[in-house]
Amino acid sequence: MKDTMPFVSIEKLPHLDQLCSDLGQDKKFCVLYDSALEEHELFKKWLLLFNWKISLQAGESLKSLSSFETIMNETMDLTRGCSQNELFFIAVGGGSVGDFVGFLASVYKRGAGLIHIPSTWLAAVDSSHGGKTALNCGGMKNQIGTFYPAHKIYLCKELLWTLPEEHALNSLGEFYKMAFLQSSSRVSEMSCYTGDVKEFCWSFLGQCIEEKYSIVEKDPEEKIGIRYLLNLGHTVGHAIEAEKIMAHGEAVRWGLRFALEFSKEQIGLEVKSLNEAIGLLEKYHQHEDKPQISTQSLVRLLMQDKKRSEDGISFILLKELGKAEVRKMSLKEVLTFAEKHGWAK
Amino acid sequence: MKDTMPFVSIEKLPHLDQLCSDLGQDKKFCVLYDSALEEHELFKKWLLLFNWKISLQAGESLKSLSSFETIMNETMDLTRGCSQNELFFIAVGGGSVGDFVGFLASVYKRGAGLIHIPSTWLAAVDSSHGGKTALNCGGMKNQIGTFYPAHKIYLCKELLWTLPEEHALNSLGEFYKMAFLQSSSRVSEMSCYTGDVKEFCWSFLGQCIEEKYSIVEKDPEEKIGIRYLLNLGHTVGHAIEAEKIMAHGEAVRWGLRFALEFSKEQIGLEVKSLNEAIGLLEKYHQHEDKPQISTQSLVRLLMQDKKRSEDGISFILLKELGKAEVRKMSLKEVLTFAEKHGWAK
Repeated sequence: MKDTMPFVSIEKLPHLDQLCSDLGQDKKFCVLYDSALEEHELFKKWLLLFNWKISLQAGESLKSLSSFETIMNETMDLTRGCSQNELFFIAVGGGSVGDFVGFLASVYKRGAGLIHIPSTWLAAVDSSHGGKTALNCGGMKNQIGTFYPAHKIYLCKELLWTLPEEHALNSLGEFYKMAFLQSSSRVSEMSCYTGDVKEFCWSFLGQCIEEKYSIVEKDPEEKIGIRYLLNLGHTVGHAIEAEKIMAHGEAVRWGLRFALEFSKEQIGLEVKSLNEAIGLLEKYHQHEDKPQISTQSLVRLLMQDKKRSEDGISFILLKELGKAEVRKMSLKEVLTFAEKHGWAK
Repeated sequence: MKDTMPFVSIEKLPHLDQLCSDLGQDKKFCVLYDSALEEHELFKKWLLLFNWKISLQAGESLKSLSSFETIMNETMDLTRGCSQNELFFIAVGGGSVGDFVGFLASVYKRGAGLIHIPSTWLAAVDSSHGGKTALNCGGMKNQIGTFYPAHKIYLCKELLWTLPEEHALNSLGEFYKMAFLQSSSRVSEMSCYTGDVKEFCWSFLGQCIEEKYSIVEKDPEEKIGIRYLLNLGHTVGHAIEAEKIMAHGEAVRWGLRFALEFSKEQIGLEVKSLNEAIGLLEKYHQHEDKPQISTQSLVRLLMQDKKRSEDGISFILLKELGKAEVRKMSLKEVLTFAEKHGWAK
């Protein structure tokens, strides 16, 4: 499988030689990057390699249609006379930059080249893979988008390593999710790992991403439901994220805990597996209190969930570690459980 | 081949029964239509079948990013809570409406259903087929877009028949282009046809579209050059269209004439075939003078052409009727020919 993977782990930011050898000698590159990266000397130096570059204010406001119009006009001016077949956009940043530049590349003259260089652990393990691009619309997130897999994703150690440790801690939810979807042995392997949190992330990055691709390739455009499995931990996770204003990977970690406990009650996940999984969730986070939100907020947030339909909420549960399934649950079932176990009141 | 074709010719606008039987019983529909159609009683009555409808001001200004933002917000409000898998957008209009709604459908929650009901002969024979969607950007046409083939295209006789005869006359260029790309016998068949121009268009519509699909399916995203052949007559056609403010199909008719004469000189198209083809071009248009534009304008307009690259213009020429090929021509070769034969001075 590894041969066909579009991502590669490298120590340093890729030089032009590497880009041209990976993507073609006659290619042109336009870098769109998170302006916060300008503080890194290494990045600033690397940026000098390129003639075409646009600095972006990362965050959800970047993903508005009016910001898209501004940046698209700027891009068109910069790259005038360039054909879509010779041009590659390089997105350097976290999730919002990746979503935005991915969309831009997918619609630029009906599809230009796209390269991701994620600068956050969350983008490195999750959002830069799988081809989902997104803008916001009508006050709601990710309502506009395309499926447009990047042609290449560079995971650069020097870029990820400059981040404060907290960023790695906040991304762990997505690493754990992949382990729960994959197998009990992957969960054990992660649990037994002895390095610090950055080393943990770097060590398991490739394996987690491969697990994501193995799911995405069975259902790339989310047509048959298999890709939904990647939503494990996200239904309640998104509600906690919105209500508690918590980092995404952190909220997913709590969403996973909810999903695990719920799986035990609903479809008989064994106590041994449950405890093993909870052990991993607590590996770098001990003695934390469960976040509790109001039942009213939980109702409102669950009703907004994209995976909701008229007959209930599509909830991802685990039969065993490595065996996830989609279950249609009523709102009442979710709320009753949440209140009984102290998630909501 | 016909079995897999997504278009169907029908007498009347499709009722809900037909839409549901063609597309699925549980589907929801949102109609986006050219506001000019509100003058047709038949259309107004048909529109009453739908709860969700948005009236559009057709034309190039519809295809701006700011107009896209407005309409996308309106669409999101209207269809709130609807999933992309159950929703079909129905575009009723000409080329600009089809380009715009096609793009909107392709990015709505990463891809909703799309139905075209072309209300112009040009959209019926050409733009509603083949999956090109488009918005304008940076003062240039069709710089933003996706490849997103419609799930169904309804060619409605009652809608096309209400148009003044002039519209049919102005669309003929695209009909003739398909014949030249197809075969000498198709050219003869069209030349011998004895009905009026509307009957001509309706009679040859299906065959022309099938010829387009047979080319598009070999190169759906214009990656290997085969789809370029559909540009026959368009290089000089676009220049004449811009300079003379002429209808697209009309300008293409002149662009075809140029390409035919140029083919004789450059790659030896036989005089017999040339005369046969010119005979068809003049079938419904006799005793017309060739449009002549200034050499200066021709240079400027050819330099803007999308099919231009640093080493010349990709020109589509005909070796025989039914045998088109792409030739890289220098600007000088095109200009010399244009001046020598009275197209430019």
